[in-house]
Amino acid sequence: MRAVRFHGRGDIRVDQIEEPVCEEGQVKIRPAFVGICGSDLHEYLAGPIVIPTKPHALTGGRLPVTLGHEFSGTVEEVGQGVSGLKVGDRVAVRPNLSDGTCSSCAFGRPNCCRNLGFIGFSSDSGGLSDHVTIPARHAIRLPDGFPLDLGAVVEPLTVAWHAVDRSPVENSQTAMVVGGGPIGLAVVQVLKARGVKHIVVAEVSDRRREYARALGATHVFNPLTDDVVANVRTLTEDAGADISFECSGVQAGFDTAMKGIRVRGTTTIVSLWEKKPVIDAFDVVSYEKHVIGAAICEDGDFEAVIEAIASGKIDPRPMITSKIRMEEVEEKGFKALANEKDRQVKILIDIEA
Amino acid sequence: MRAVRFHGRGDIRVDQIEEPVCEEGQVKIRPAFVGICGSDLHEYLAGPIVIPTKPHALTGGRLPVTLGHEFSGTVEEVGQGVSGLKVGDRVAVRPNLSDGTCSSCAFGRPNCCRNLGFIGFSSDSGGLSDHVTIPARHAIRLPDGFPLDLGAVVEPLTVAWHAVDRSPVENSQTAMVVGGGPIGLAVVQVLKARGVKHIVVAEVSDRRREYARALGATHVFNPLTDDVVANVRTLTEDAGADISFECSGVQAGFDTAMKGIRVRGTTTIVSLWEKKPVIDAFDVVSYEKHVIGAAICEDGDFEAVIEAIASGKIDPRPMITSKIRMEEVEEKGFKALANEKDRQVKILIDIEA
Repeated sequence: MRAVRFHGRGDIRVDQIEEPVCEEGQVKIRPAFVGICGSDLHEYLAGPIVIPTKPHALTGGRLPVTLGHEFSGTVEEVGQGVSGLKVGDRVAVRPNLSDGTCSSCAFGRPNCCRNLGFIGFSSDSGGLSDHVTIPARHAIRLPDGFPLDLGAVVEPLTVAWHAVDRSPVENSQTAMVVGGGPIGLAVVQVLKARGVKHIVVAEVSDRRREYARALGATHVFNPLTDDVVANVRTLTEDAGADISFECSGVQAGFDTAMKGIRVRGTTTIVSLWEKKPVIDAFDVVSYEKHVIGAAICEDGDFEAVIEAIASGKIDPRPMITSKIRMEEVEEKGFKALANEKDRQVKILIDIEA
Repeated sequence: MRAVRFHGRGDIRVDQIEEPVCEEGQVKIRPAFVGICGSDLHEYLAGPIVIPTKPHALTGGRLPVTLGHEFSGTVEEVGQGVSGLKVGDRVAVRPNLSDGTCSSCAFGRPNCCRNLGFIGFSSDSGGLSDHVTIPARHAIRLPDGFPLDLGAVVEPLTVAWHAVDRSPVENSQTAMVVGGGPIGLAVVQVLKARGVKHIVVAEVSDRRREYARALGATHVFNPLTDDVVANVRTLTEDAGADISFECSGVQAGFDTAMKGIRVRGTTTIVSLWEKKPVIDAFDVVSYEKHVIGAAICEDGDFEAVIEAIASGKIDPRPMITSKIRMEEVEEKGFKALANEKDRQVKILIDIEA
């Protein structure tokens, strides 16, 4: 069968590999649509960073790994001992794997597992293939009529859902999202679904600000030309936003996210960082600000996002900017994301195409 | 009357100034004991930093200012319209002044006022004088028999009380205090009073570690020779502390405070910063950590600390390392704090001596 495998920096191949066997507790899935994530791109351009070069502590996987951790598909085989799933079920896949024994897992936070792994990133099996076997509990059923292409964007939306859940959103009228990449745009949609009145987006790309508007932002600013913090102050009677979401991963974005919140406001960091940013600790103290981290998603987030999409509270279709075939994954997938950064949000590989 | 005034860097004088008049809404106080704060020392060594060189937005005060914002005393005159206080009452003084109109005050956080001022720091009147007039609501009555020297350490303890209140102390078994200066040691006492089981202190000075032990620390480490984070891990079954308090104001301390907490742990920053530290944002995200700021104190904190001392839950006497006369304030006060840093914690000026 075909599998898109990462062999090293700038080296992604559509390989022929053996079809996996569905073992006890597993389901075999025929992937339908698979998204390319920013972390995939990061590995392609600068990796291997997180993708293991020696056997992963949890999965045993190592280079070359099959990519694809944002995907939907159809169950084509059910392993022994699996209940609640049957052949033909359409599912989204929760990719994060945890060891169940580390201090984070013991504390009930498997999303912060000290040996965190991912289907399609740090294991032998991934969604960018003709067949994939996964532990059955990682397959989340989609309701009847739920489009399979939208099933592939559930995973990034769960990251946003979890980040918003981590923030004090219930008491928030004004939220700021710094960075309008896929995760920032996902946060915008969740904030809208959660009924936040003012959703302010700071993003340098004109087109991404348009996407932000289409997905629910009420105010968009270009930090290269607008004083974002001053604008947020004006909008909030000089107070600042109640909450902000750092989705840019760069110092200037972090500064904006922190400066833009009110006294006792909260900045939730969702972005991943290569360099450590500086933090204005004096400002944190003087205005009693909060900074919190949000990692991937928790139990129940997949179900919550699926319900929000099914009920129309979230319509992520504008996020999907392109659909391509597996054989086009490098040229029209990775290279397009790298070179047309402001035009592409979520590129899906249509496995059947 | 005598007043200890700050004229500029390295320039503190016992001046003769006019005795203040007690106006409507004020009380005139005869100070008893006055502590020297780290911020006073900071101004002496490197100021003026916060002490205003042009009229302060709120108080109108400017150089030279009368110092002394940690003090106790006896009411010697009560202004018109003041109720609840009478001549002879012994009081501690809440020094922070707020404008009541800024967005922080409007949000109910006068301790984060955008025009924050301090009696004895940014106004004409301070505790290091023979008489001082203050708004009556800033005089907090001490119970009968409450020693006046302990009344002078109520203020730094309120800062610690507030910081501990800001943290999720109720669900915490293990707390880390990084930095054993006056505020760090005050935090130790409050943590003990609040029933925290393990109180771990990281402090480079041998003598300050001894003070920490005397005041309630259950484990003390020297970060220059001990791996503090590894020790905290050992103590907590590899999890890390539930909460930590950054009381050092330096990068290495902040790093220890952040690395030493568990998944979803909280670091409360109490220290003031000249330089902005770097923060390991990837670690904050991966382990969903929290960072929060705590500024000075809130309504009720003076009463809470006074009650804790009166009932014996807090015994801050070991903090008081020296008592001196007003005329000795520079040599045996400021210079002693600067040069005998590890020997002195809180130096009190006995105004009557």
